[in-house]
Amino acid sequence: MKEQAEIGGTTDGGLHRLALSDADKTVRDWFREQMANADLDVRIDTMGNMFGRRSGTDPQAPPVLVGSHLDSQPNGGIYDGPLGVITALELIRTLNDREIETAHPIEIVNWTNEEGSRFQPAMQASGVWAGAHDLETEYAKSDADGISFEEELNRIGYNGDTPAAPQEAYEAYLELHIEQGPTLENVDADVGVVTGVVGFTWGELSFHGAADHSGPTPMDHRNDALVAAADVITQIRRIPGTLGDRTVGTVGHVDVSPNSVNIIPGDVTITWGFRDPSDEVVQEAYDRVLEEADWAASREGVELDYTETMRAPSVKFADRCIKAVQSAADELEYESHQLLSGAGHDATHLDSVCDTGMVFAVSENGKSHSPAEYTSWDDCYRAANTLGNAAYKLATSD
Amino acid sequence: MKEQAEIGGTTDGGLHRLALSDADKTVRDWFREQMANADLDVRIDTMGNMFGRRSGTDPQAPPVLVGSHLDSQPNGGIYDGPLGVITALELIRTLNDREIETAHPIEIVNWTNEEGSRFQPAMQASGVWAGAHDLETEYAKSDADGISFEEELNRIGYNGDTPAAPQEAYEAYLELHIEQGPTLENVDADVGVVTGVVGFTWGELSFHGAADHSGPTPMDHRNDALVAAADVITQIRRIPGTLGDRTVGTVGHVDVSPNSVNIIPGDVTITWGFRDPSDEVVQEAYDRVLEEADWAASREGVELDYTETMRAPSVKFADRCIKAVQSAADELEYESHQLLSGAGHDATHLDSVCDTGMVFAVSENGKSHSPAEYTSWDDCYRAANTLGNAAYKLATSD
Repeated sequence: MKEQAEIGGTTDGGLHRLALSDADKTVRDWFREQMANADLDVRIDTMGNMFGRRSGTDPQAPPVLVGSHLDSQPNGGIYDGPLGVITALELIRTLNDREIETAHPIEIVNWTNEEGSRFQPAMQASGVWAGAHDLETEYAKSDADGISFEEELNRIGYNGDTPAAPQEAYEAYLELHIEQGPTLENVDADVGVVTGVVGFTWGELSFHGAADHSGPTPMDHRNDALVAAADVITQIRRIPGTLGDRTVGTVGHVDVSPNSVNIIPGDVTITWGFRDPSDEVVQEAYDRVLEEADWAASREGVELDYTETMRAPSVKFADRCIKAVQSAADELEYESHQLLSGAGHDATHLDSVCDTGMVFAVSENGKSHSPAEYTSWDDCYRAANTLGNAAYKLATSD
Repeated sequence: MKEQAEIGGTTDGGLHRLALSDADKTVRDWFREQMANADLDVRIDTMGNMFGRRSGTDPQAPPVLVGSHLDSQPNGGIYDGPLGVITALELIRTLNDREIETAHPIEIVNWTNEEGSRFQPAMQASGVWAGAHDLETEYAKSDADGISFEEELNRIGYNGDTPAAPQEAYEAYLELHIEQGPTLENVDADVGVVTGVVGFTWGELSFHGAADHSGPTPMDHRNDALVAAADVITQIRRIPGTLGDRTVGTVGHVDVSPNSVNIIPGDVTITWGFRDPSDEVVQEAYDRVLEEADWAASREGVELDYTETMRAPSVKFADRCIKAVQSAADELEYESHQLLSGAGHDATHLDSVCDTGMVFAVSENGKSHSPAEYTSWDDCYRAANTLGNAAYKLATSD
């Protein structure tokens, strides 16, 4: 864990390892070497996803896939996805050390660009692999400097030979990830048994008023795009409390033009984001935000346009995977807690390919995507142990 | 007017002529040539302010100063300040053509960097000239590329020999400017007689919450800096209507960090700007916005810090200058309207040096600082005529 965290590590104990960057290449080289040392059969696919396979005893049994992602947010934390990849590797090493055989092969995986910071969308390569996105479309995506995903994938030498799609049926997929929220800490749990992923809607609202000198323009002659936007920001703070106890709503991004102290804002774009376990509630939040934006625009006499940039239905994981994780935690005598994931993960896409489950490690203070992200060594160990035993269960099942 | 508007002119009929840019140098060269052709005695001061002097018949009489500024906002309009400089030049040409002498000398002036877009603050060089700012401090100011005012002033060859300060007593200062507001058009006036300039306060409010993943962080675990800021934006729209019929309040600038759709904003800075004819009302607006910001911050559990970046007391122009402008308009049988300027002008600084007055030209729809800025030729003519006659009155007074 410590070894890989130094690749792209920041001086404040964080991690800056953007997808397909030099740091990503270095950690990939390291991970490939570790997989080879663990006698895994390594293959790289055309999206740069890295797989390492340990054979099973039953030639007919489909593999159990276990993994997560090694890339990070800009100045993110060291646990996030890497903990799930290192845990998968540790599972293999433990089975090797103890000479334990499984009927099903076990594959471990590092998915390319889960974070979606440098190239959008997030969970990009698992999405292609699961058939949610088209390869050529994703190849053409470019970063802020105009460099394409395909160029960078080729540059770092990770455009592999295997097509980015399942090459056979899979028995199951398991992923360990940090919770990125405060729930497990709040209920004093040792480990989280994830039952699914909430659905969400993301979008943009653009208000178009009139940029004008902020001195001589009387208040009743104004069409201030920022005032309308502020109105909606306030409503987005309020809407979740009227819909459900698990609903969240956020405005994360604001773009103001011309953005000068002395000019009334003419054009303002804000994003919306709502998540809830129920797809109906997500739809209601979507309807409500557009209604509020319409009101806000007409109150201030500005034009509104909007676009929904992403909609993801909620995911309910397979009962047998939830049960495998739960039994593993119970047998280890850990205090466990069943919860939904508030964030999307590669597991979201994998759920459409095979039975899928997740294990959450406790996140101190619920912090993530920052150098303050922290999971104690004990909590890492308990989550890893739970994942390993659950994967072993699935890999030895009939 | 048309000739100078082509220097830095934009394809949409606007003007992009930032202070000390190449376009500013070109228009200065053109203006210097026009002044020389009009037999004016030209001098440049150490802030690049350009003066042209026409002698009077009374060697003891102090000069009447008339002018404005030739620089523009980024993608601004062609009227703004240039109309006032061209008008001053036309006054000289008219006096020359008709061989009219005045007891007082008349000086025309182009003040450097009135706009304050490239180098802050606005009204920079008239401020140094009037003793409000220190020369060396302003020399050291740099633009967004880190180039200093002094470097650029030297580069374009407009660091003159005359100290940037009054070299003698002045009889009066008159400035013609477009209104930049809708008042004259609304009351159907031909020309505006400006009685003073409203006071204002500008400042910044910074809210510091906790950046966190927008998915798994429950609503009751959030300290969202943007929500607090939005609250204050809404209040700044509301405060003017509770204080006075001339009060205006604006948030023109917003800076959100990390500004990503999927992250709760951790740090947000917004600006405030309030203007009113009464300094007491400006103070009340200032007190109110800090009170509202405190409330907003505590409601959302975020930290607040603030700084007032500028405070300008209101200015009441000299009665004799107001009277000179009013009589000129009356004698020309123009429908005139007395009003306060909602924007600061070089005249604000000049008021501390000598008796000062202003003439406003009608702004169509009150638009300014954009290519849509427009004053009809008739309105330009009426304002120029008013200014010329008022200046003549002052230059022939005892």
